[in-house]
Amino acid sequence: MNIDSSVSHENAGAFTRAWGWLKALPEKLWGKVVDVAKKMKKLGEDDPRRIIHSLKVGLALTLVSLFYYIRPLYDGFGVNAIWAVLTVTLVFEFSVGATLGKGLNRMLATLSAGALGVGVHSLATLSGDQIGQAIVIGFFVFLTASTVTFVRFIPAMKARYDYGLMIFILTFCLLSISSYREDEVLEMAHQRLTTIIIGCSIAIVICICICPVWIGVNLHNLEATNMEKLGNFLEGFGGEYFNIPGGPSMDESFLQGYKSILTSKDTEEAMANLARWELWHYRFGFRHPWKQYLKIGSLSRQCAYKVDALNSYLSSKIQTPNEFQSKIQEPCTKICTESGKALKELASELKKMTQPTLVNRHITNSKIAAENLKSLLNTTCLCENDSLQEIIPTAAIALILMEIVPCIEKISEAFHELASLARFERVDGARVSP
Amino acid sequence: MNIDSSVSHENAGAFTRAWGWLKALPEKLWGKVVDVAKKMKKLGEDDPRRIIHSLKVGLALTLVSLFYYIRPLYDGFGVNAIWAVLTVTLVFEFSVGATLGKGLNRMLATLSAGALGVGVHSLATLSGDQIGQAIVIGFFVFLTASTVTFVRFIPAMKARYDYGLMIFILTFCLLSISSYREDEVLEMAHQRLTTIIIGCSIAIVICICICPVWIGVNLHNLEATNMEKLGNFLEGFGGEYFNIPGGPSMDESFLQGYKSILTSKDTEEAMANLARWELWHYRFGFRHPWKQYLKIGSLSRQCAYKVDALNSYLSSKIQTPNEFQSKIQEPCTKICTESGKALKELASELKKMTQPTLVNRHITNSKIAAENLKSLLNTTCLCENDSLQEIIPTAAIALILMEIVPCIEKISEAFHELASLARFERVDGARVSP
Repeated sequence: MNIDSSVSHENAGAFTRAWGWLKALPEKLWGKVVDVAKKMKKLGEDDPRRIIHSLKVGLALTLVSLFYYIRPLYDGFGVNAIWAVLTVTLVFEFSVGATLGKGLNRMLATLSAGALGVGVHSLATLSGDQIGQAIVIGFFVFLTASTVTFVRFIPAMKARYDYGLMIFILTFCLLSISSYREDEVLEMAHQRLTTIIIGCSIAIVICICICPVWIGVNLHNLEATNMEKLGNFLEGFGGEYFNIPGGPSMDESFLQGYKSILTSKDTEEAMANLARWELWHYRFGFRHPWKQYLKIGSLSRQCAYKVDALNSYLSSKIQTPNEFQSKIQEPCTKICTESGKALKELASELKKMTQPTLVNRHITNSKIAAENLKSLLNTTCLCENDSLQEIIPTAAIALILMEIVPCIEKISEAFHELASLARFERVDGARVSP
Repeated sequence: MNIDSSVSHENAGAFTRAWGWLKALPEKLWGKVVDVAKKMKKLGEDDPRRIIHSLKVGLALTLVSLFYYIRPLYDGFGVNAIWAVLTVTLVFEFSVGATLGKGLNRMLATLSAGALGVGVHSLATLSGDQIGQAIVIGFFVFLTASTVTFVRFIPAMKARYDYGLMIFILTFCLLSISSYREDEVLEMAHQRLTTIIIGCSIAIVICICICPVWIGVNLHNLEATNMEKLGNFLEGFGGEYFNIPGGPSMDESFLQGYKSILTSKDTEEAMANLARWELWHYRFGFRHPWKQYLKIGSLSRQCAYKVDALNSYLSSKIQTPNEFQSKIQEPCTKICTESGKALKELASELKKMTQPTLVNRHITNSKIAAENLKSLLNTTCLCENDSLQEIIPTAAIALILMEIVPCIEKISEAFHELASLARFERVDGARVSP
């Protein structure tokens, strides 16, 4: 009886658990759904252009499907109209640069591969019998596919023409292989090219005409934001480390903002590659010096490494400064604020696309402060009661700050180059000689 | 007469220049060709796997073109066999992980989009007339394309399923739009799925069977090489900075090797994402902890930032050490050599996939040296004739070295975690207790 009751108890327990799990299941699933929905909502709120892009893709595909619904168009292309649908899906990207790049790549590759395919077809038909034809085509497919695949490894080709080279292999193989069974290769190549041009055009026109996302503008703003982040850190650092009351308050986001710059190299290069496709738009000329942005980006990154070194000292802030610390406090904070201001000034001028005006003054000020700091370090005699352990971190910070000054000067020089290359507006009224 | 002769002289001059240019043209073109050929040769020599990959792609495409040559196969699929060619070109990537990822993505996406497309077709036929059908299909195309495009922005989806989502849109649109003109949608979906499975299988089998490139192995080796580069720098740095004769000689490549680590984050993440597709191969299990590699990579990067700070001091090497410098020289070089050895030991054990043995001893040694250095800095009284300008760089280096020690301890901990997660081999004979 005892055993029986325990078994029935256990069964009851298992049943209750299972029932509880089942009862909780809808709630759990609902929680999961709500979770995903919240994430999607946040994605949309962070960058509403994503929602617009999604709607644009939907619109482009609905438009291209008109090919099928309207009889005259269908009569012209028949089943081949499907290539237009395919092209829109594959070519439509978030930014204008990427869409243009893919579209032009696809059109050019189809054109050249089509020409080569037709050529190989003529050569193959010369060989007469079916087996000879198969061998000639097979040989050229192997040769072209291998060679072009290898060319895709060349870095300069990979950066700009990777997609085009892939489409080249694809179109060439499609055409020359099909030519074995069908004789109207020229007709086929022509139809394929036309539908692809139509697909690309629809994608490009919709991408440019409805709320376009210019990746060049994104890169431009990214560089400005990066300089601003570095400027914010530097401007706040002096007050934070030397514990000066009344300085600009630094919250965690200010202090950690620069971290994204440390690893932004690949992103910046990809953006610059795509930006080159955006031939012309309202503020950037045909040959906008995108390479110069990469130079500024790389100099900012070098500055960010030094800022990272500064950041590691923030864990041991000064509570009550000793004699040495209070001596060098003034030039140190001066370098921080002046170079921070210089960077923020550069950032705002980059955003406005104007020639730099006040920057030189800030840089001169920070250079003077660095000179002062250097002579202070040279002439200071340490009192024997100063603890080396306390002095060294502060002195190390002073050294890093002295290195940051030429770093920012280089950024400013690169910016001046950019401003003259891209012919930024001159604001003469506000001009201040250094 | 004078003018005439000068004109004819000028003409003669222009002609000579043009002739010279024309004569030099073949040479110039030849030079260009030789240049490109040299570059291609270097690409192949740097990584012969690239040549093998190119030949593999050629082979796969030649194989798939057999579909067209052999009549029974062609009779089965007809013009649709072209999808197999298309699939091979689009899916075949350099590494097994990328090929598997794209192949599985493509197959799954085609399957699910095919099912949905057939469903929408049935729904559209219910609406009876042509216009109603067009509206129903148009609505679903717009809805699906927009939603799935938005889903592609979710980072977790983008990392692993981006290609699949694109193919999902593509297949769904192709099927549901074609269904407007053709009634055999089920047949079409079935043929498309079969040809795509055949294309993917050919690509995957050739990719895996002929000299496969496992991206997991590449990531594994990359992390090992990164640690080795950092170890090389640290091991050489002490002797180089303190100008100790007889230390390991450092050439430029040793000193600059670590720079690639600073910006390797994106590459590593992309590799880890692809490595997860490589379900199983000879040394890495089904659930190999790829995330742990990213952790080691990120810790190595933090170490590399500190190494970069050290590197900036190498421009001002010590010529004749003052009293302070010769005092701290010993513990500093000790930290350098011991932590360098620890990193190189970790690298070699990662390469061999064995449990760490000697590492702990090196880390303990470097910790003891760091403690010595700390107490030295605490107790040292500075002589008044020491120049602060000379002392500070050396002291700053000492501080950085003291920070590097816990940094390397963290790398070692992450490595221990990896070794236990991935069940690295234990080499008991050589085991040394710390």
